[in-house]
Amino acid sequence: MIKVGIIGSTGYAGGELVRILMNHKDVEIKWYGSRSYVDQKYSDVYRNFFEIVEEKCFDDNIEALVEQVDVVFTATPQGYLASILKEEYLQKAKFVDLSADYRIKDVATYEKWYGIEHKSPQFIEEAVYGLCEINREDVKGARLVANPGCYTTCSILTCYPLVKEGLIDVDTLIIDAKSGTSGAGRSAKLPNLYCEVNENIKAYGVASHRHTPEIEEQLGYAGNCKVMLNFTPHLIPMNRGILATAYAKLKAKADGSLPTEAEIRAAYEKYYKNEKFVRVLDKGVCPETKWVEGSNYVDVNFVVDERTGRVIMMGAIDNLVKGAAGQAVQNMNLMFGLAEDEGLNLVPMFP
Amino acid sequence: MIKVGIIGSTGYAGGELVRILMNHKDVEIKWYGSRSYVDQKYSDVYRNFFEIVEEKCFDDNIEALVEQVDVVFTATPQGYLASILKEEYLQKAKFVDLSADYRIKDVATYEKWYGIEHKSPQFIEEAVYGLCEINREDVKGARLVANPGCYTTCSILTCYPLVKEGLIDVDTLIIDAKSGTSGAGRSAKLPNLYCEVNENIKAYGVASHRHTPEIEEQLGYAGNCKVMLNFTPHLIPMNRGILATAYAKLKAKADGSLPTEAEIRAAYEKYYKNEKFVRVLDKGVCPETKWVEGSNYVDVNFVVDERTGRVIMMGAIDNLVKGAAGQAVQNMNLMFGLAEDEGLNLVPMFP
Amino acid sequence: MIKVGIIGSTGYAGGELVRILMNHKDVEIKWYGSRSYVDQKYSDVYRNFFEIVEEKCFDDNIEALVEQVDVVFTATPQGYLASILKEEYLQKAKFVDLSADYRIKDVATYEKWYGIEHKSPQFIEEAVYGLCEINREDVKGARLVANPGCYTTCSILTCYPLVKEGLIDVDTLIIDAKSGTSGAGRSAKLPNLYCEVNENIKAYGVASHRHTPEIEEQLGYAGNCKVMLNFTPHLIPMNRGILATAYAKLKAKADGSLPTEAEIRAAYEKYYKNEKFVRVLDKGVCPETKWVEGSNYVDVNFVVDERTGRVIMMGAIDNLVKGAAGQAVQNMNLMFGLAEDEGLNLVPMFP
Amino acid sequence: MIKVGIIGSTGYAGGELVRILMNHKDVEIKWYGSRSYVDQKYSDVYRNFFEIVEEKCFDDNIEALVEQVDVVFTATPQGYLASILKEEYLQKAKFVDLSADYRIKDVATYEKWYGIEHKSPQFIEEAVYGLCEINREDVKGARLVANPGCYTTCSILTCYPLVKEGLIDVDTLIIDAKSGTSGAGRSAKLPNLYCEVNENIKAYGVASHRHTPEIEEQLGYAGNCKVMLNFTPHLIPMNRGILATAYAKLKAKADGSLPTEAEIRAAYEKYYKNEKFVRVLDKGVCPETKWVEGSNYVDVNFVVDERTGRVIMMGAIDNLVKGAAGQAVQNMNLMFGLAEDEGLNLVPMFP
Repeated sequence: MIKVGIIGSTGYAGGELVRILMNHKDVEIKWYGSRSYVDQKYSDVYRNFFEIVEEKCFDDNIEALVEQVDVVFTATPQGYLASILKEEYLQKAKFVDLSADYRIKDVATYEKWYGIEHKSPQFIEEAVYGLCEINREDVKGARLVANPGCYTTCSILTCYPLVKEGLIDVDTLIIDAKSGTSGAGRSAKLPNLYCEVNENIKAYGVASHRHTPEIEEQLGYAGNCKVMLNFTPHLIPMNRGILATAYAKLKAKADGSLPTEAEIRAAYEKYYKNEKFVRVLDKGVCPETKWVEGSNYVDVNFVVDERTGRVIMMGAIDNLVKGAAGQAVQNMNLMFGLAEDEGLNLVPMFP
Repeated sequence: MIKVGIIGSTGYAGGELVRILMNHKDVEIKWYGSRSYVDQKYSDVYRNFFEIVEEKCFDDNIEALVEQVDVVFTATPQGYLASILKEEYLQKAKFVDLSADYRIKDVATYEKWYGIEHKSPQFIEEAVYGLCEINREDVKGARLVANPGCYTTCSILTCYPLVKEGLIDVDTLIIDAKSGTSGAGRSAKLPNLYCEVNENIKAYGVASHRHTPEIEEQLGYAGNCKVMLNFTPHLIPMNRGILATAYAKLKAKADGSLPTEAEIRAAYEKYYKNEKFVRVLDKGVCPETKWVEGSNYVDVNFVVDERTGRVIMMGAIDNLVKGAAGQAVQNMNLMFGLAEDEGLNLVPMFP
Repeated sequence: MIKVGIIGSTGYAGGELVRILMNHKDVEIKWYGSRSYVDQKYSDVYRNFFEIVEEKCFDDNIEALVEQVDVVFTATPQGYLASILKEEYLQKAKFVDLSADYRIKDVATYEKWYGIEHKSPQFIEEAVYGLCEINREDVKGARLVANPGCYTTCSILTCYPLVKEGLIDVDTLIIDAKSGTSGAGRSAKLPNLYCEVNENIKAYGVASHRHTPEIEEQLGYAGNCKVMLNFTPHLIPMNRGILATAYAKLKAKADGSLPTEAEIRAAYEKYYKNEKFVRVLDKGVCPETKWVEGSNYVDVNFVVDERTGRVIMMGAIDNLVKGAAGQAVQNMNLMFGLAEDEGLNLVPMFP
Repeated sequence: MIKVGIIGSTGYAGGELVRILMNHKDVEIKWYGSRSYVDQKYSDVYRNFFEIVEEKCFDDNIEALVEQVDVVFTATPQGYLASILKEEYLQKAKFVDLSADYRIKDVATYEKWYGIEHKSPQFIEEAVYGLCEINREDVKGARLVANPGCYTTCSILTCYPLVKEGLIDVDTLIIDAKSGTSGAGRSAKLPNLYCEVNENIKAYGVASHRHTPEIEEQLGYAGNCKVMLNFTPHLIPMNRGILATAYAKLKAKADGSLPTEAEIRAAYEKYYKNEKFVRVLDKGVCPETKWVEGSNYVDVNFVVDERTGRVIMMGAIDNLVKGAAGQAVQNMNLMFGLAEDEGLNLVPMFP
């Protein structure tokens, strides 16, 4: 049994991690970390676990923790892991970090967008960006995995094949994303109150959302070019789910014609046909977040608009699963040589 | 592997049955029955099953079906199974009926509340009322199980211990229930439109809802008396979940005093301590539907009001799981000698 | 023009008061009081008022305030007005208090249920309970009106005619109420977060909610008897609206028969036929909160259950209008000799 | 008093028209047209009007109708008005058509996108496109006004100043729109059921939505150029509201520099400073649909992204008010020489 410790187990992503790991046959959770609820029963914080989880919450004692577990998940605010990580911890346990601390290779970019100093840049190079479908082999050997952001997972997987194959002009790429409210976390803030979110929709973080450079970096690797795009998140009155709608000009082929629907579909199939968790939907079917709710799936599809020469790419995920906890478990499975889908055969719940 | 056929697989309860059975290790679904979607891919009806279920929908051919399967689930409108069931079918397959056809022992009562003639009353006597926590032993040997209604499951389990132990005056029993909208089914009717349900609450079927006689009959067996109560359902703007709030006068003991909080709690513990799927919450904690969503749990609790001499009993379920598909699988497990919780270790999803 | 001051103008009830008074032809708001947002533009707090309200928020300076206005609305936490009110203020301005401070005539009862000491009991006797339909004449002459609670307004008006006419046994009265989330106020607390409320329902304050003694007192006046009942509120995933479902045994008449449907309807008509804001729905139609949203209406109706000898009474209001701000304006209209419905001809918004 | 007839009064837009006209001091509704509910009380269809509207629904008898009223609102399916309109009707009454029949000047474009033959193209030239803020003077003299679509109203007003002033490259214009579910109408279709929409988001009509050519035509007039853009609508789990998020490259000025934030703001102010119903929000504030709910306002704002050289324009409306019924009344006011905002001083309702 792999022994697991979770720091930040009482946030929404932490809770989802516990839900998934409860049905993972090779794992045992040894440490429910939560600064806010030390010594309280975990199931008093999340009553869905009543009579399922009997443990209490522990304080963040990283020294003690790495002695007891094989892998640490950090579902913590930005800067936390960077501020405490040491080489000796990495020698004792593997780390899957659900925060942004090691996602961006360029420290200056991280510090600019996040507005904080990076306290352990020496580990950035080593850290593997844990988007399993793209970096699978690197994840397998990693000690430290930077689990991708929710918006970024959805955005990257939606556009990846067309960027990789050079079918679109990345300078025209625009991603308009919509997220359920659990993405805002469980802290008690006025804008997250029921009456403020319900029956409402708004954009936020326009031209300034922190997931932007992460998407740009990863798509830049795919396209082997510098990517600078617009990413606009919106808050949707629902608990879970992210939908990304992405727009780009198709690149003309040598003969001046645009890529066809079939050629674009072939690009998606090339990268995703053997990917269990990425489902390329049938022609004409738009992804809906409800069809992936509670599961680790990413549903993607596209529409070619011949009038404008653009392709509209769409992708849907459950932000707490493929966008956080599910992907973290997928990474853990790879890191420990388990079946990649172990514990992740979650059938989407509808309605 | 137990071979399963589902008639009515494209209703919400049918879809939930498929979701649960997908992760049941001893079961194989051989027949996705759906009159409305014959020859269409099941995953075109419920796209959450895309790349998970490849089968198409079959028409209702009960003759052919019973030859191929070990158990038939009927998630069909009232009167369907009663109109087609024959002894020879029961000899070939077991039946779990999610409709009301065999729940009520008195034909006249059934016909009065449902307004239809019962076409096969000869099987009523044999049918076992499949509330596993109460009729476990009978279910084990049954050929035909009448799976309880959603409101009834929640209502009965909420009140059962106090009725059984004679702690409340059943003549004063009132059940005020609230249900998510999936309980209304998937048919396209104006009152079920998003804009009609959202931001709204109403009672319906006041003093006339069909689950009333079912609750009365079962609590009558528990209390060994005739029960006549008020049951009022309400439609809530949420997908899943039923909450029952029940009120009754406490019965004075021989010395004239009322049962204490501890005595009432002891009654709940007596019947539910060893029941995996019934969770008696800690004192002071009210059941919430979100804490059981997606799972087979029933959360119950109560408050004693010394001022009025009443006890307020509360229970929460997921109407599609413990209130329908989950309980149906629980019954199937018992009927086939499997572990009762096989396929039902579903951790509630929050948020 | 009547000059108005609002203390607590940035809570949900305060905001609703502003919305209603904007279209009241005889009123001018002079003072937007808000301790939390002093010196901030009111429309920065509630952006629906952008370009409609240009004023900034003032601190609570009651001395200055009563010099400038004719009427003060206090939409403040319990205990606030009681702690500052003086005779000289009442000589300078009329007060409509949306808190509970002067609703309950018995100080001990207030202090027990609210858990705070009442700082100005000398005004309790004078205060008029502002349920206009019942205390209209007294309100007209009042200096200090205790605006009823949201649950209480709905509960009392739902049951009043039958209690008043002695048609029900008040000892059997049970009120099961359901409220939208705006009733919980605008403070940033975890249980009010979107993801905690959405897709969820729960009871709270079971046998202990503070509106209980207020309902009991008022129905006691109506029935000329002591009333002790069960009141259970539930939190519903919607912004606005309260639905009360009340249960009571019908009282047998002299000849031993129960009151008929027609007799009960006559009782409702007797008290409400001329009441503009109370609508007795047609037989068979259940009140729905959506049909009164944004308006000052109370929709009531009932069903007689001959089987159990009970009547089920139902009532629906918008908790922020008839349950708070609308009723406050209705009281103000009466206090200043205006048409009772001035500014209140709000047509319910659907959907 | 202006006598009004409504054909299609029982759809959501029709109901909203009635709500608004109830508080319009110069108007009397003489004809509640509804093919589906002939002879039924209007308030039995929309119970919010109980005791407010006493009339019954009439069948569509246009001959009789134009004799009795001064203005006819048609809130009907596409093709209806085009199929019945005659010159004699226009001589007897003015028409405000909420359908698309006369919005598009090019018949071929209409017939291609709507897939139906236009039965009275002779009136297209005369019809005035009723976007009051842009075509005010023409509306004043019109007999036939084509009331703009909901998405189009929001999209056009969001982008208009920048297109008109030539600040953006219209070839790069992309509009990603999000709408509440009332936009889908009140017909009982499976995709509009509560459980299908709730907790879900999807795009639909990608690259094929009928409002596309309408937006293109109107922005083409503004920019004096051919406009071809991408418009993608999304269905949001809320009743009301449309948010448009639009993206375009800023056009370099003569000196090669891009327009500044101040220059762009000046463009918005130029066209909207004196427009009561268009509110240009303060810098940094994103439009939210909740802030305009129930009102005729359009809230707009923008963000300049210097990194990408794009401007992100945002606009929010209530789809049933400014997007349908409110704008129709605004047009009627202009056509009859009334104050443009008569009956439209609706303060947005929050929460």
